[in-house]
Amino acid sequence: MKKKVLSACIALALGAGAGYTTIVLAQAKPDVLVKQRQAVMTLQGKYFGQLAAVAQGKAPYDAAAVQRSAGFLDNLSRMFWDGFDPSTKDIKSRALPAIWENKAKFDENAARMENETSKLASLAAGRDEAAIKAQIQAVGKVCGACHQEFRAK
Amino acid sequence: MKKKVLSACIALALGAGAGYTTIVLAQAKPDVLVKQRQAVMTLQGKYFGQLAAVAQGKAPYDAAAVQRSAGFLDNLSRMFWDGFDPSTKDIKSRALPAIWENKAKFDENAARMENETSKLASLAAGRDEAAIKAQIQAVGKVCGACHQEFRAK
Repeated sequence: MKKKVLSACIALALGAGAGYTTIVLAQAKPDVLVKQRQAVMTLQGKYFGQLAAVAQGKAPYDAAAVQRSAGFLDNLSRMFWDGFDPSTKDIKSRALPAIWENKAKFDENAARMENETSKLASLAAGRDEAAIKAQIQAVGKVCGACHQEFRAK
Repeated sequence: MKKKVLSACIALALGAGAGYTTIVLAQAKPDVLVKQRQAVMTLQGKYFGQLAAVAQGKAPYDAAAVQRSAGFLDNLSRMFWDGFDPSTKDIKSRALPAIWENKAKFDENAARMENETSKLASLAAGRDEAAIKAQIQAVGKVCGACHQEFRAK
């Protein structure tokens, strides 16, 4: 397929013309990076929230729903580290300068997060309710450790 | 672990106290649902944007990167249909009333979207560059068909 046609199809497909195209071509812009990483956190809130409610006994343990949320959370935990680019330092957000002052530690947290959500996704494919609930807590701890050090209250 | 302790751990873990807890316990609130589904679209824009750039020849074909983006997009395509709840009708957004007036057709679009992103994710695991690029276009078409009918310009 010719590039022009494909181009036109995609522009039409996105149905947003200039707006979307701007995002596509300028996704490295600092404000876009911040918006994208905040979108990830919004969705982490959605799915971790559902899981935390189960771990807290506020929602019933539904194995399929937990597996679904855990899978999404594991994907989300891999979606946003590239959003913490030094170019975003001056964009207003709750990200603290500590992120770029101590990038090695921040990256350690990132690796821990991915590791814990990956474990949770694996466990959630099984049916060991107690282990799953404990692992939800482990994920929460790694969220909290990172927020404590790298996110404004 | 006692519920109270776990509760406290999770609250601490989230590091946001009341704010996050509100989201957790009230995720069915219409404004939160809208924020969450918009977050999904922001991230679909991120990953579809990367894929579209490859399909358009504006970015080089990097098999691993394409597979990663396609996997994320497939997950994202499953994350937001529950956000189109009738309770969100009156929240300002680009969602058109047609969604709730013609829910069956909207749901058909949802199923098509999941189907096309699933195909893309499968293809992306292989290395048939032409097929992958064609499927990126197929995904774009289904985005566009839905936007055309159900999203304000």
